[in-house]
Amino acid sequence: MTISPLAPAAFPDLPVIDGVTFATAAAGVKYEGRTDVMLAVLAKGSSVAGVFTRSATRSACVLDCQDKIGGPSDGKAAILVNSGNSNAFTGKNGTAAVNTLTSAVSTTTGIDETRVFTSSTGVIGEPLPHDKISAKLSELNAMQSDAGIADAARAIMTTDTFPKGASATVMIDGSPVKIAGIAKGSGMIAPDMATMLVYIFTDAVIAQPALQSLVSAHNDATFNCITVDSDTSTSDTLLIGATGASHIDVTDNADFSTALHDLMKDLAHQVVRDGEGATKFVTINVTGAADDQDARLVAMATANSPLVKTAIAGEDPNWGRIVMAVGKSGAKADRDLLRISLGDLLLAENGWRSPAYSEDAASAYMQGATIDINVDLGLGAGSSTVWTCDLTHGYITINADYRS
Amino acid sequence: MTISPLAPAAFPDLPVIDGVTFATAAAGVKYEGRTDVMLAVLAKGSSVAGVFTRSATRSACVLDCQDKIGGPSDGKAAILVNSGNSNAFTGKNGTAAVNTLTSAVSTTTGIDETRVFTSSTGVIGEPLPHDKISAKLSELNAMQSDAGIADAARAIMTTDTFPKGASATVMIDGSPVKIAGIAKGSGMIAPDMATMLVYIFTDAVIAQPALQSLVSAHNDATFNCITVDSDTSTSDTLLIGATGASHIDVTDNADFSTALHDLMKDLAHQVVRDGEGATKFVTINVTGAADDQDARLVAMATANSPLVKTAIAGEDPNWGRIVMAVGKSGAKADRDLLRISLGDLLLAENGWRSPAYSEDAASAYMQGATIDINVDLGLGAGSSTVWTCDLTHGYITINADYRS
Repeated sequence: MTISPLAPAAFPDLPVIDGVTFATAAAGVKYEGRTDVMLAVLAKGSSVAGVFTRSATRSACVLDCQDKIGGPSDGKAAILVNSGNSNAFTGKNGTAAVNTLTSAVSTTTGIDETRVFTSSTGVIGEPLPHDKISAKLSELNAMQSDAGIADAARAIMTTDTFPKGASATVMIDGSPVKIAGIAKGSGMIAPDMATMLVYIFTDAVIAQPALQSLVSAHNDATFNCITVDSDTSTSDTLLIGATGASHIDVTDNADFSTALHDLMKDLAHQVVRDGEGATKFVTINVTGAADDQDARLVAMATANSPLVKTAIAGEDPNWGRIVMAVGKSGAKADRDLLRISLGDLLLAENGWRSPAYSEDAASAYMQGATIDINVDLGLGAGSSTVWTCDLTHGYITINADYRS
Repeated sequence: MTISPLAPAAFPDLPVIDGVTFATAAAGVKYEGRTDVMLAVLAKGSSVAGVFTRSATRSACVLDCQDKIGGPSDGKAAILVNSGNSNAFTGKNGTAAVNTLTSAVSTTTGIDETRVFTSSTGVIGEPLPHDKISAKLSELNAMQSDAGIADAARAIMTTDTFPKGASATVMIDGSPVKIAGIAKGSGMIAPDMATMLVYIFTDAVIAQPALQSLVSAHNDATFNCITVDSDTSTSDTLLIGATGASHIDVTDNADFSTALHDLMKDLAHQVVRDGEGATKFVTINVTGAADDQDARLVAMATANSPLVKTAIAGEDPNWGRIVMAVGKSGAKADRDLLRISLGDLLLAENGWRSPAYSEDAASAYMQGATIDINVDLGLGAGSSTVWTCDLTHGYITINADYRS
C-alpha cells in the first residue's frame, strides 16, 4: 500500500510514560507476517476514561468497555487490542468472545476483569478467533516493556498507510508531566468500514471523573470534528489512562488540558491525513453563525458534501458548491450575508462573487495539499471548525474495486 | 456524453394535454447548437401548484415562484425555463434578472406577471444573460404548439444523458383525464451541482389548494425519497398545471391521485437512473422501525452512505456496511433484531450472518443492474422506501476531473 501523500515525515519519538508497559505479538488473527495484538498494562490505581462510537449497532467490546469505565480503580488495568477482526455484528458469539478474552487476560495478568478493556478492529460479521489471541497472552504478559508504544501503534493498524503517534510534556511547578498517544484509523478495513482507535497514556495524577470530563470535552472539539466520508464505525474507541506516576496532580490544570487537547487534535488530524484516497487536508472554519450548533451543521454539511469534496480533489475553487452545502445544512443562513474565502482569498460576499475574486489566484491556492475553507454567515457569534479530506478516485478504488 | 446504462429504451410518447402549448428556442445562454429555453402557456383559469428546494440559499426564480404560487388563478399562466445558467447566488442582480424576464414574458404574451413562473438551471454565480432569453420571447410566443412537450424535455436538459418524460390517462366516469410530465436532473451542471426540475400538466379540473395538497403529499413519497449524493440544489423546482380542459373534476378522486403519484415516482426514478456515474438502480426498503420517521432515517443513511454506495458499485454484498448505516442513522435499532436481505436473499438476522447466507448467491444478485436492499428493524410498524444509485469512478470523473 502506498503511504498517504499527507503522512508526516516520520513517526515521532514518544516518551516513556511511567506506569505503562506494552507488548505486541503476531497472533495471526487475519494478517500474515506482522503483529496484530497489543497488550498495555497500567499501574495500580490508574484512572481510565474513554469515549466511544454512538452507533446503535456498536460492537461487543465497545459495550463491555462502556460498562466498565468509571468502575473501581484501585488495581492495575489492562488494554488488549487486536487488528484483523472487529468482532462487530457477531451477535451472542461476539459477547462471549469478549468475555472469554477479558477473563483470559485477567487470569494471565492477575488484573481484575472489571479493569480489562478490549478493542477489536478489522473485518465484521466474522467470528473473532479469540483462541489465537488467548494463546499469545502469556508471551504478551512476559514481554511487557515501557518502550513498546511505537510497536503498539503498528500492531493496531489495519490498512492504515502509516502508524500514528503524538506526545506532549507539560511543565507543572518545574516538573514534567508526560502524555503519549497512538491512533489508528481511516485506512480501509477490508472489507468493511474504517474504525478509529485511540489510546492515550499520561503519568499525571487525576481522578477518573475529572479525566473523563476532560477527555469528553476535548473529544467534542477534536475527534468528533473530523470526517472522512460521513460514515461511522461500529467500533470507534478512545481510551485514556493516567498512571499518577509523576505524583503531579493536574486536576483543573489549564496547561495539561491544553496539551491534552492539542495532542488529541494532532492524532485526529493524522487520522484525516490517512483518509482513504486523501490527497488534500481540508480545514473548514465556520464563523458568524446564529449559534455554535448551526456553525457545526454548516461545517459538517460542507465537509461531508460529495460535490465539495470532489471539487477539492479536482483543485476547483468551486464556491458554488459551498453555497449549496450551506443552503442544505439546515442552519439559519442569509444568502446575501455569506462570505466565503479560500485561505485569505475572498471568493464571495453580498450574495454574489466578490469583486476581488481572481480565478487564477483561487486555482493556484487549490493546488496546495492543505486547504482552508472559511465560511462566515454574518448572523451571530457561533463558530465551528471541522477537518476533512477530499473525495478521489482513490476512495472509490479502495472501497469498490474489489470483492470481499 | 455516454447515455446512462440505466436509461429507458426510448422517450415515451406523451399525449397532448388540452390547454397547454409549448415552444422551444436556442437562445445561446451557454450551450451551442441546441435548444436551451422553453415556454409553456396554460389556458385561462389553470390551477398552478408547486414544490421547491428547501435550501436556505435558493435561487431568485425559486423565491419568485414561491411568492406567486397560490395567487390569483383566473387568467392564463406561463412557465419559462432556461438551461445553461441557474441564476443562483447572483445576489440582487439575480432578482433583477427574474423581474426583467417575467415582465418581458408578460408583455409578449399578455399574461399577468403574477402568473409567469420561471426556472433556471446551469452554472451558478454567473450573471444570467436574460437579454438573450428575452430576444427569443416573440418567437417562443408565436411558435406555441400543443405537441411541443418532447422538445421541451430536451430544452431543459443540462448534462442529463437522456430526456425524461412520463404520462398517464385516467378514466373517470368513462372519460379520459390525461397527465404528462417532464423532468431534468442529476446530470451534472458544470461546474456546479445537479438541479432537479419537473413540469407536469393535466387537463383535469381541480382547484389550486387541492392540487397543491396532492402534489405536496406525493412529492414526499417520490421526489423527496430519491438521493444521488445527498447534495441539495439551490434551484429544485416542481410545477404542476391543471388546465381543466377535460371538464372532469378530479378533486378527491383516488384514481387520479394514484396516477399522479405513479407518474411522479416514474420521473423520480428516471432522475436516479441518470445519476452521475450511476451503474445500479437501488431501492432501499426499511420496515419494522419504531415509526416512519425512524424508517426514513435508516433508509436515507443507507442511501447516502459512501461505503454502502461503493460496495454496490463493486458488486459486493457487504451487509456489514448496511449494519453500519443503520447504526449511525440515529434511529432506534437493536443489533440482534436486524434482518437484512438483498432481494429475497436473507443475509443477516439475530445479530449475526444468517445460516442461510450464500456468498455465491449474494454475489450473483449484486451483478444485476437493479438492487433491492431490505432492512427490517424488528421493532415496530414504521416503514420507508428510498431510491438511489451507486457511487462510482464515473461520479468522481464527472465532478473532480475537470477545472471549471
